[in-house]
Amino acid sequence: MMEFTAKQIAELLNGTTEGDENAIVNSFSKIEEGTPGSLSFLANPKYTHYIYETEASVVLVNDSFEAQKEIKATLVRVEDAYKSIAILLNLYNKMTEKPSGIEKQSFVHKKAFLGKNIYVGAFSYIGKDAKIGNDVQIYPGCYIGNNVKIGNNCIIYPGVKIYYNTVIGNNCTIHAGTIIGADGFGFAPNGGETFLKIAQIGNVVIEDDVELGALVTIDRATMGSTFIRKGVKLDNHNHIAHNVDIGQNTVIAAQSGVAGTAKIGENCMFGGQVGISPHVTIANGVKISAQSGISNNVLKENSILMGAPAYDLRAYHKSYVHFKNLDDIVKRLEQLEKKLSSE
Amino acid sequence: MMEFTAKQIAELLNGTTEGDENAIVNSFSKIEEGTPGSLSFLANPKYTHYIYETEASVVLVNDSFEAQKEIKATLVRVEDAYKSIAILLNLYNKMTEKPSGIEKQSFVHKKAFLGKNIYVGAFSYIGKDAKIGNDVQIYPGCYIGNNVKIGNNCIIYPGVKIYYNTVIGNNCTIHAGTIIGADGFGFAPNGGETFLKIAQIGNVVIEDDVELGALVTIDRATMGSTFIRKGVKLDNHNHIAHNVDIGQNTVIAAQSGVAGTAKIGENCMFGGQVGISPHVTIANGVKISAQSGISNNVLKENSILMGAPAYDLRAYHKSYVHFKNLDDIVKRLEQLEKKLSSE
Amino acid sequence: MMEFTAKQIAELLNGTTEGDENAIVNSFSKIEEGTPGSLSFLANPKYTHYIYETEASVVLVNDSFEAQKEIKATLVRVEDAYKSIAILLNLYNKMTEKPSGIEKQSFVHKKAFLGKNIYVGAFSYIGKDAKIGNDVQIYPGCYIGNNVKIGNNCIIYPGVKIYYNTVIGNNCTIHAGTIIGADGFGFAPNGGETFLKIAQIGNVVIEDDVELGALVTIDRATMGSTFIRKGVKLDNHNHIAHNVDIGQNTVIAAQSGVAGTAKIGENCMFGGQVGISPHVTIANGVKISAQSGISNNVLKENSILMGAPAYDLRAYHKSYVHFKNLDDIVKRLEQLEKKLSSE
Repeated sequence: MMEFTAKQIAELLNGTTEGDENAIVNSFSKIEEGTPGSLSFLANPKYTHYIYETEASVVLVNDSFEAQKEIKATLVRVEDAYKSIAILLNLYNKMTEKPSGIEKQSFVHKKAFLGKNIYVGAFSYIGKDAKIGNDVQIYPGCYIGNNVKIGNNCIIYPGVKIYYNTVIGNNCTIHAGTIIGADGFGFAPNGGETFLKIAQIGNVVIEDDVELGALVTIDRATMGSTFIRKGVKLDNHNHIAHNVDIGQNTVIAAQSGVAGTAKIGENCMFGGQVGISPHVTIANGVKISAQSGISNNVLKENSILMGAPAYDLRAYHKSYVHFKNLDDIVKRLEQLEKKLSSE
Repeated sequence: MMEFTAKQIAELLNGTTEGDENAIVNSFSKIEEGTPGSLSFLANPKYTHYIYETEASVVLVNDSFEAQKEIKATLVRVEDAYKSIAILLNLYNKMTEKPSGIEKQSFVHKKAFLGKNIYVGAFSYIGKDAKIGNDVQIYPGCYIGNNVKIGNNCIIYPGVKIYYNTVIGNNCTIHAGTIIGADGFGFAPNGGETFLKIAQIGNVVIEDDVELGALVTIDRATMGSTFIRKGVKLDNHNHIAHNVDIGQNTVIAAQSGVAGTAKIGENCMFGGQVGISPHVTIANGVKISAQSGISNNVLKENSILMGAPAYDLRAYHKSYVHFKNLDDIVKRLEQLEKKLSSE
Repeated sequence: MMEFTAKQIAELLNGTTEGDENAIVNSFSKIEEGTPGSLSFLANPKYTHYIYETEASVVLVNDSFEAQKEIKATLVRVEDAYKSIAILLNLYNKMTEKPSGIEKQSFVHKKAFLGKNIYVGAFSYIGKDAKIGNDVQIYPGCYIGNNVKIGNNCIIYPGVKIYYNTVIGNNCTIHAGTIIGADGFGFAPNGGETFLKIAQIGNVVIEDDVELGALVTIDRATMGSTFIRKGVKLDNHNHIAHNVDIGQNTVIAAQSGVAGTAKIGENCMFGGQVGISPHVTIANGVKISAQSGISNNVLKENSILMGAPAYDLRAYHKSYVHFKNLDDIVKRLEQLEKKLSSE
């Protein structure tokens, strides 16, 4: 990392300095682990007390921040400290060297089409009629099946496996070990107690600006497509079943599962380990608390839900407080019963 | 896909036509997305209203279906529309070209034994004394450890890793990234607070007609074998621990976990994100609702369970309705208390 | 396996024989599946009845074991039968042949540094400036990114992917398909409803004696490091988010998730499918029951918790008994109401 002064950083972020504007930083640190020569930030109020002790040389803070004590570090005041640190980290990240070229030990089918300025790592396999856009990095050990389309400016990390006919848009990032386009889980009873496999002949369509964590699975549709819409972010170990449709900019934390043919709205946020039943529809802007289960449609936009089955979060919390007190509640009931029977 | 008339399809499925028996189809569609020239089906009553609007040229319906309005499409009446569409999709799927041959960039140990008509993709590794049956497809990037046995007519999708000594039967399908035969999670307290690893020297045995989804783990036994019996279907992200035995034709939805030495009966169905405790026995035909937890034996066949710990599903639902009303219930209790104290 | 007499085994384990000290064994078996010529053990009292029927030739038992009937097998009495069998299994395991050498179809960057006596399987990739210690086995299909450090005596099973800058200590075992160092799940709201990716420029540090199961994910820190401390054992499908710190000798069962910046104490034990919220601190020695959720700090050492949100396990069980009886409880409440209104 090159060196920057507090003043240069403030100019870059449209902010103002407070303290020594010539303070120099050449690395990033968390505020609680701040070291001299590093740049830190304060966004979560829980961490405010660290700003009075941090050894970081420069700290980004929100314009609204009011110091209660003396601060050793130079402050750079910006509108949104969290967004500003994101901008700086991304700039830093873009300056790091990226791999490029086709490594010799890869397999590229002679009928595959590769765009400009791409990286194909060793032991990656690119199938027949696959079409890879420009500025795409495919790390080692990936599998890109026949007739897969990948847009421009995507990063496919090591070991990602993409089945045939999958379509991926521009600016997508897919982390290691993720599996796209495996068969949906479809079986028809076949007399007796055995099952008949239902061939899954559809595909998966992932739109632009999607980020998938590590070890995510997105199953291909029985017919038609499973859709991951523009701007969706899925954390590690998510499972998206066949024919699901996840709406734009929806964010799902780790280890959640969405069962077959569920339709999830836009701008939703799900916590970790959430489960969505098959064929359910969820409106836009719905928030679901971690470990909750949704077994029926949620048609009211911006609902905030908890429980299994889930309902209104505040109501759930109220019930849960009583649940914790049930032993006491039952004792009160018993006392009333005694009183009444003795009357 | 070749073209078929409604009449030809009816003959193939032992069904009868209603409407233009010469209507031609050359693709499949979901009834709600039906396009001219496509074949659709109606099995789930929730979708009945689409049949009056669908643009599909031919629709498979159950014999028992009674139209309430005029229908544009040609109907093909069959005994079981869902099973019939499964049959057609499988026929279609079988007509697609399958990969074959040993790709040059693979590794096949000189002491491995390969059957006839098999595919070994690039970057797949087949170890010493491994024995692969006839008509097996091993996609790129798989690892087949030493002394693994795989039967006939299996499909191993990209990136599957199979540890040494695993035994797999005939007609099995294993989706991408699944791990078979990793060590069971066994540690003995070792004085102080450290643990002594217990070497896992058993194996995994998978019988015929099993389908495993993507990113499933099945751990090897400490001693003896972990068993996945004939006809079992496991969805993505399932975890099966060491020395577990999953009975014939049992079906488990995504992200469920079965802990060590549990014995699961035949013909069971578990929803997603279910957890089974170690050493538990579950009878045949038991159904467990999604996200439930089983911590004790379930010895009654065909039980239907929910909750964590799980018990009778209907009883659970009844209790859960009261749980949601607990605030009201406690208020009623308070009123009674007031009444009685004021008397 | 070579042959041993009961007497030899007793000497090795500092135990005493009871019965024919010349009984010979050459394999291991579970007590319920014991075969002549095999060595078994009895540690879990649930299995005691099998000792009177087992065909195993020799059985390890605790010194405290008191037979209620005649036993055919030779007993070897030891202080701790479970630990003793672990010692024997590990000895057996160490005698099996291990792979070694650099397989020709691997990729080792010319600027990577490899220690002595190591194995690099075909299709494994070792990046620039990576440093691998002595006596390390890297199975086929792994990816070791740039500048990764791995200590001595580690086993990296097939298909493990380790991102750049990760640091791994000595004596670590990492099972197949595990992903270390993928980006933490960090996004800042970016005006409208889109998100700005926060580059994750930190790393993962794994200390000595750690075992990770198959398909585990451990995300890299935003800044600084995600820490897995000495002696930690994580079962399959665990998810450890960015900037988490898991304390020494903590053990976590399968499919659990620890969200960002959570700090887990030493010697904790979590059941399967547990969820820990972001930024939570958990004290040393805390035990958490399977499927529980922790949303607040747990500052009392050695707490035993259950529920979602979790609290004291015994109290939870008490409440849950009442929950199951809620229908009856509400009926009792109704009767009181009737009685009082009729008075």
